[in-house]
Amino acid sequence: MIKIEVDLGDRSYPIHIGSGALANISTNTKVESRQIMVVTNETVAPIYLERITNAFADRIVKTVILPDGEEFKTLDNLNVIISALLEYEFDRSCTLIALGGGVVGDLTGFSAACYQRGVDYIQIPTTLLSQVDSSVGGKTAVNHRLGKNMIGAFHQPTCVVADTATLSTLDQRQIRAGVAEIIKYGLISDPEFFEWLETELENLLRLDAECLAYAIRRSCENKVAIVARDERESGVRALLNLGHTFGHGIENVLGYGEWLHGEAIACGICMAADLSVRMNLLSTAEYERILSLISRAKLTLLPPVGLNPKELATAMYKDKKTRGGRIRLVLLRGIGDAFVCDDYPDSEFQAVLNCGRASNQQ
Amino acid sequence: MIKIEVDLGDRSYPIHIGSGALANISTNTKVESRQIMVVTNETVAPIYLERITNAFADRIVKTVILPDGEEFKTLDNLNVIISALLEYEFDRSCTLIALGGGVVGDLTGFSAACYQRGVDYIQIPTTLLSQVDSSVGGKTAVNHRLGKNMIGAFHQPTCVVADTATLSTLDQRQIRAGVAEIIKYGLISDPEFFEWLETELENLLRLDAECLAYAIRRSCENKVAIVARDERESGVRALLNLGHTFGHGIENVLGYGEWLHGEAIACGICMAADLSVRMNLLSTAEYERILSLISRAKLTLLPPVGLNPKELATAMYKDKKTRGGRIRLVLLRGIGDAFVCDDYPDSEFQAVLNCGRASNQQ
Repeated sequence: MIKIEVDLGDRSYPIHIGSGALANISTNTKVESRQIMVVTNETVAPIYLERITNAFADRIVKTVILPDGEEFKTLDNLNVIISALLEYEFDRSCTLIALGGGVVGDLTGFSAACYQRGVDYIQIPTTLLSQVDSSVGGKTAVNHRLGKNMIGAFHQPTCVVADTATLSTLDQRQIRAGVAEIIKYGLISDPEFFEWLETELENLLRLDAECLAYAIRRSCENKVAIVARDERESGVRALLNLGHTFGHGIENVLGYGEWLHGEAIACGICMAADLSVRMNLLSTAEYERILSLISRAKLTLLPPVGLNPKELATAMYKDKKTRGGRIRLVLLRGIGDAFVCDDYPDSEFQAVLNCGRASNQQ
Repeated sequence: MIKIEVDLGDRSYPIHIGSGALANISTNTKVESRQIMVVTNETVAPIYLERITNAFADRIVKTVILPDGEEFKTLDNLNVIISALLEYEFDRSCTLIALGGGVVGDLTGFSAACYQRGVDYIQIPTTLLSQVDSSVGGKTAVNHRLGKNMIGAFHQPTCVVADTATLSTLDQRQIRAGVAEIIKYGLISDPEFFEWLETELENLLRLDAECLAYAIRRSCENKVAIVARDERESGVRALLNLGHTFGHGIENVLGYGEWLHGEAIACGICMAADLSVRMNLLSTAEYERILSLISRAKLTLLPPVGLNPKELATAMYKDKKTRGGRIRLVLLRGIGDAFVCDDYPDSEFQAVLNCGRASNQQ
């Protein structure tokens, strides 16, 4: 079992990674609360919920089971969770447990941030994407019809438990979506990890236990190092948004749930790399390495055929990364060398947005 | 003009108090944002809104005008504000301005806490109650049908501007409701201030400018001193809830808006004092002084006639102050000597809850 410490002063917490980590959930999480609310979804509940409720059989454990999907990450479902907490008379010393992927984690975390102005919560991510990204770092939110993650809070969990054995029930599409975020860490600041991925990608995709544990650990270490320097995204943390401004735009225009988040991010990374090449920041050789790796992960390199570039630009403009009327992007000077940029030529930006259309016209 | 500094490290901010403070609003608040959203209600908007929008004529200023009343402090209206921010394409560098009483302040503050995971906001309280209490300290929230302020956040404003001239448009009922919170500060830890109130109460009620400025200043100083020691209510800040657990219970059972918040708090203070006397903590002489002052402010000393004590107990149990199944109360050892207590005899607690009924039967 691997243990990583997230160092955030009095908000520090451990991440436990390993196959079978769920078996020791009550020992690992050290929950002292008398009242525990497990939030999960209809896909995950039949497989893992009973294991969690049994582990805390000496407490008052209640559950909220939501439908599965990004379209349920809403203020309405926040209200469902808050109502359940109030109906069961949970007080400020309770703990929420998020059992599921990023949607469950973000929604549960935000519920914990708001309930009585803040209670504890634990992340038990069961998808590759949430194990390497969304469960760590304290970003919580729900979506609004006009934009993703527009209503939220920074609220750190008290513990993260990533049981790699839970990934065996995922389909390949979800695994590949998680790999997109893993590739992201290599590109931001860890060229060695990118090289490792170039060697081991197929082993990772087939869920080789050792590869999986290493990739999750290294991803979390990369993320934790950045979050510890900038918890509330006033600076360096913005680098973690590589591929996300383009990606959120695609998700927004297509409608949430059409593409998986990781699929949109993979495409967004390619678009950011494309713009970086057009600006002579990134060499074509490195660009080719990026496209090749993402392609080997069977992720899509181009925006959906027929996607309207104007709609995409509008959606990106409304994403949280806009400052003073200008969309801020994360671009690449090389593999492992990302930076935040709002000083890019509009013509090149437009050309990148038009890639999907161009491929459509070919 | 009086200026008080709230010392909270990198979340420190000034409170400006004085008659005519609104005239220099753009200078006092030092807002740098390009985009400003003023949130107010239908009562306040016709009187003060234009003054605010004119003061920031060099920015993009948008407004949200809500109906007036506690029943509008809801998640639905949070969504109204967030939707407006998104429709106007406000980014993370925007500032919200809360122009109104406690409802507008709490709702706007919580919207600012959540929008894109946190943007700046300014409090311009226009009621006595919000000038002496709710605008200071960073507690923000909306109500849930099962309890008051159940969904919220700690989010400090960047500035508070209390223009005492705005109080001249309030009716006496609202002034008296504000005085309840002012009396509270004397009772918690400032016996000198309580004595001053015993001398000056009638001058305060008739809005004598000097008295008003002194009472608001001293109230804010008392609150600020406590908030600076315990921003997130893990300890001493709980003292500020004197009268609030009983008071929230009354508001909840009656339905929000029936009694004003300050009216419920005044009654709650009397009930807390009653229990303190029954436990031989508070002398009857001091108890009489408290009742006398609250009575001179024409506030109600007893719960509403016919209020069901069981319903009141249930509502109090669901308030945020419950820990480990026990309602925590703020009681008095004397005037200026409040303390948090969960070790009180249930029989005496029940007797206090029955006061309303007893008076009914007389």
